[in-house]
Amino acid sequence: MNDEMKTKSERSTIRRLPARGNYEQETIYSIIDEGLICHVGFSLDDKPFVIPMTYGRRGDTLYLHGSVASRLQRAMAAGVEVCVSITLLDGLVLARSAFHHSMNYRSVVIFGRAMEVTDQKAMMEGLEAIVEHIVPGRWNEARQPNEKEIRATTLVAVHLAEASAKIRSGPPKDDAEDYSLDVWAGEIPLRQVVGVPVDDPQLSAGIRPSKNVTSYRRGK
Amino acid sequence: MNDEMKTKSERSTIRRLPARGNYEQETIYSIIDEGLICHVGFSLDDKPFVIPMTYGRRGDTLYLHGSVASRLQRAMAAGVEVCVSITLLDGLVLARSAFHHSMNYRSVVIFGRAMEVTDQKAMMEGLEAIVEHIVPGRWNEARQPNEKEIRATTLVAVHLAEASAKIRSGPPKDDAEDYSLDVWAGEIPLRQVVGVPVDDPQLSAGIRPSKNVTSYRRGK
Repeated sequence: MNDEMKTKSERSTIRRLPARGNYEQETIYSIIDEGLICHVGFSLDDKPFVIPMTYGRRGDTLYLHGSVASRLQRAMAAGVEVCVSITLLDGLVLARSAFHHSMNYRSVVIFGRAMEVTDQKAMMEGLEAIVEHIVPGRWNEARQPNEKEIRATTLVAVHLAEASAKIRSGPPKDDAEDYSLDVWAGEIPLRQVVGVPVDDPQLSAGIRPSKNVTSYRRGK
Repeated sequence: MNDEMKTKSERSTIRRLPARGNYEQETIYSIIDEGLICHVGFSLDDKPFVIPMTYGRRGDTLYLHGSVASRLQRAMAAGVEVCVSITLLDGLVLARSAFHHSMNYRSVVIFGRAMEVTDQKAMMEGLEAIVEHIVPGRWNEARQPNEKEIRATTLVAVHLAEASAKIRSGPPKDDAEDYSLDVWAGEIPLRQVVGVPVDDPQLSAGIRPSKNVTSYRRGK
């Protein structure tokens, strides 16, 4: 099965502007790996919910974990279907016409079923994947979860079988007759930057952040 | 009706960690106004969908518009309920224990019904709200939509009657016995920054970006 077959399905097919669709697994995983927050959608009592959550990936499994997991947990009891969306915003695209204004972005949408992870060893692996996704190297620096904490945690796995990426980059596309207008057009780039780490006010004297923290960067 | 009454309802009540809940309209609107992308969740044929979209606000109406609107448009024919989530990520919170790792963020969740805007004058107002939300001042710089473009556009309005904000800021909170661990703890701040505007390669000679573009900033 090639990458496209593996990740493309009827539902995740981009229906409009197919030139922006991209089903390659490598692209999909690179967007997932750069993002920090995903938005998880599901239905509960016939109402739609969208919850921002942290996540991690190991192989073709996406692990979800969030402070509002209780609602998702309740939904999972019924084996809920989820749609997970991850969006990286790269810039604002200003065309000569209001109509052709756009954004440059890289996004992934994943369809699947949220499966609660309950096995203790599997939970530790999933939690490690999340912590390492957010700050590589942090899992072995921090105190790892004890049994009580594991019991208080809800971890969810989604198999990355049905996913697609969508990317827009580059300058605006205006209608031919608009290129002569006296209107500036181009891109305003946006990016997420990392600030200088701030010590916890209660940090004991003499403890310094590791290189995992001081050299922290995201994406390229 | 006070602000809390106006924006709080049973469904949007934050169920866990209520100290982080914030129902004040001013807070909710400031988060909405700073964000650039929202994630819109709805059900279609009993499947959950989450779509990233641009948006604007005018008063207590949120306008949605996106290149993948066709799917939403189809759902709207049945008067679909939506959940709209807007998340601003402010930093990574590194605790001494893996368990207490967190993020600093400001988020809003809105429940409502997506109503398609079809009246031409109302559409122009909604599109203006979106363009002005993304780049203030841009609506009057760009060529405004003509009738053909208006007909090709799907615009959706969601009444901001049922919304809540959730905010986390500040240092990590560790268990008392963990403060003596030899582990650095604190925050890695994150923020979105604006790069230098990039001219469209097809820009006519002598056209320069306005101050709305060159002084573009987001948030505080």
